[in-house]
Amino acid sequence: MSQVPRPPRIAEADLTDAVVRVVAERGLDAVSVRTVARAAGVSAGAVQYYFPTKDALLQAAYRRVIDRVTERATRLLPAARAKDFVRALLLELLPLDEEREAELRVGLAFTARSVVSPPLAELYAEGYRALVEALEGALRRAVVQGEAAPGIDPRREAVAAAALADGLAGHLLCAPGALTPNEAVGALDAHVDRLM
Amino acid sequence: MSQVPRPPRIAEADLTDAVVRVVAERGLDAVSVRTVARAAGVSAGAVQYYFPTKDALLQAAYRRVIDRVTERATRLLPAARAKDFVRALLLELLPLDEEREAELRVGLAFTARSVVSPPLAELYAEGYRALVEALEGALRRAVVQGEAAPGIDPRREAVAAAALADGLAGHLLCAPGALTPNEAVGALDAHVDRLM
Repeated sequence: MSQVPRPPRIAEADLTDAVVRVVAERGLDAVSVRTVARAAGVSAGAVQYYFPTKDALLQAAYRRVIDRVTERATRLLPAARAKDFVRALLLELLPLDEEREAELRVGLAFTARSVVSPPLAELYAEGYRALVEALEGALRRAVVQGEAAPGIDPRREAVAAAALADGLAGHLLCAPGALTPNEAVGALDAHVDRLM
Repeated sequence: MSQVPRPPRIAEADLTDAVVRVVAERGLDAVSVRTVARAAGVSAGAVQYYFPTKDALLQAAYRRVIDRVTERATRLLPAARAKDFVRALLLELLPLDEEREAELRVGLAFTARSVVSPPLAELYAEGYRALVEALEGALRRAVVQGEAAPGIDPRREAVAAAALADGLAGHLLCAPGALTPNEAVGALDAHVDRLM
């Protein structure tokens, strides 16, 4: 019998999806090599092959969330007017369907832990920068094309729009009895309408 | 020797402050009866007397944070114009000094855990409702006194303002290299200036 470790019979991406599921369904505290192995239907060794620590598991899950949002944003970009793009990108962050809710649960767990874990903080900042840059680019486009309200500062409004959507997302997820999805979308729309 | 449990020689509020310190300095994972006892300089039994579980510790810490913010907001209210009050209340949520940063760290840890703990979720929603109501009241006042921009919906803008401040707070805390306090305050001011 060979003692050389062989790659397990599961793709890394499928394992990452299992982490996303565990975090989304049972929270960060439930994430361990064992729970992820069970969710993915593989051995603990298979999980450890790819992700030796809990932080490695979380990083992979969060990167997967960033990738998914980026992919959807990239699909939105080409055809859309700047205003439609900004609105659609911000809506991607709200937990308005099951997929986005699962992503947000991972995001929230990851964010809380990033405060005390430098490698996670780095990935958090990377995702944040990408979001603000995408919004800023669209706002600049709107200014150049004369579609923005007078006096709009693209960088400042990108920072504000990212914060607004992130804040609404957290409130929808954590205080669902105090804020409806319609109210959140209404608040977001009123904001975007004042910008462009 | 009496076997009747006696109240420990520490006030509950001092113990709660120790929980706030532990969460702020070392994150949620570090919170336990033992670490809190050490931070407060008392026995584990003293901590357990007031807070038998980790969730009880966290609830007390979060309620203390809500109380502190409410107390500061109450001091702001009487003299201020609606616009000044809204601005000052939103600034209270940003981690612009050590005290507010510690509060935000507790808030973020608590928020993440509230998603999987119904008693924590209830307290989260209570704090959220109080914040939105305070903002909505001030916005109504601004509308009545003719100080609000045309077409402002107080409830909708209260929801948006709470989200904006909460989002900026999270971004400042978790991506300090990507957003400066000045930028965050600038984004918040630009938003409030459009409302009133």
